[in-house]
Amino acid sequence: MEPTRIGVLISGGGTNLQAIIDNIKNGNINGRIELIISNKKDAYGLIRGKKANIDTLYLDRKQFNSEEEYNLELIKKFKEKNVDLVVLAGYLRVLSKDFIEAFRGRIINIHPSLIPSFCGKGFYGEKVHKAVLDYGVKITGATVHFVDEGTDTGPIILQEAVEVEDTDTLETLKEKVLRVEHKILVQAVKLYCQNRLSIEGRKVIIK
Amino acid sequence: MEPTRIGVLISGGGTNLQAIIDNIKNGNINGRIELIISNKKDAYGLIRGKKANIDTLYLDRKQFNSEEEYNLELIKKFKEKNVDLVVLAGYLRVLSKDFIEAFRGRIINIHPSLIPSFCGKGFYGEKVHKAVLDYGVKITGATVHFVDEGTDTGPIILQEAVEVEDTDTLETLKEKVLRVEHKILVQAVKLYCQNRLSIEGRKVIIK
Repeated sequence: MEPTRIGVLISGGGTNLQAIIDNIKNGNINGRIELIISNKKDAYGLIRGKKANIDTLYLDRKQFNSEEEYNLELIKKFKEKNVDLVVLAGYLRVLSKDFIEAFRGRIINIHPSLIPSFCGKGFYGEKVHKAVLDYGVKITGATVHFVDEGTDTGPIILQEAVEVEDTDTLETLKEKVLRVEHKILVQAVKLYCQNRLSIEGRKVIIK
Repeated sequence: MEPTRIGVLISGGGTNLQAIIDNIKNGNINGRIELIISNKKDAYGLIRGKKANIDTLYLDRKQFNSEEEYNLELIKKFKEKNVDLVVLAGYLRVLSKDFIEAFRGRIINIHPSLIPSFCGKGFYGEKVHKAVLDYGVKITGATVHFVDEGTDTGPIILQEAVEVEDTDTLETLKEKVLRVEHKILVQAVKLYCQNRLSIEGRKVIIK
């Protein structure tokens, strides 16, 4: 089977991106990252991409009149590279309807909680872990899901739980969840590239 | 240490009640159930209580003018028995403010999901598992928490995750979660009876 052509969107450090790069390199994922696009000029993920000889691009939102126009450019760049799967690896902007339509059922996102807990508008990055600690839950986790028009509402591919301990801080919790994020994102991308994921209504069936 | 005096409220079969009875009997929980009250005449939990030589009482809501008056009677009955801890073991009515005030920090409830997912008004019994299956989550679980004025909003004592498999039905999921309910409810009651739970804001610290 030909390697799946992957596009990645980032806004920051890109440790989830690195996990994908490493697992393509070691043969675990049958894919190829064709292009990494960042909306932040200084995103460290761009450097990770360059180090792995992957094409990278910084696209400045300010150079476009609207979110829609910005997204049309994203679509164009990915389409030029014949991207089949788009992975959001810590991309902190919302995708336009056009983008979701252009890659329906082919956009994967990672979220640092057990959806539907601690997700939706306002829940991103450390804000998620702060809310988890403030609520006092004993279990949190991470979720990989397909992206639809809502915020964190798309069909769930994989989830894994993480215990919250009394001694956990924002830092220790973030670290523990991040380890699980890497694991299930890699697993989900691997399954996608093996053509083993099918969406039936709200459910993702693993073949 | 003297055994903790426990009151139990039920509406149905009472398998969680049975788990507590068994773990008191085998010495795992240092407690004594003083009284079991059901709002349903034919709740099988009443028979479980009688078999274990525990006082049981059926209190018909219809015999009272309001939920408040009904709850005043519940308080009276438990106070007569010097109950220290109230366990809701599948009690499907909402407690009044008076009741919560009378036993503040001393009422434990078990909920068949990972709060704050699939909880609050309308989420009880099988409706929870149906919502879990409809949403398509891959992880659910159970939560033991102290009861406050909200619905399923009180400080969380223990949680445990349960995997949802593609082949799970309402029945199989209910069964798997129930096993975890028994385990963490028994553990929470045991910790309470050992005086090892302290509530700090929204967090329950296990000493």
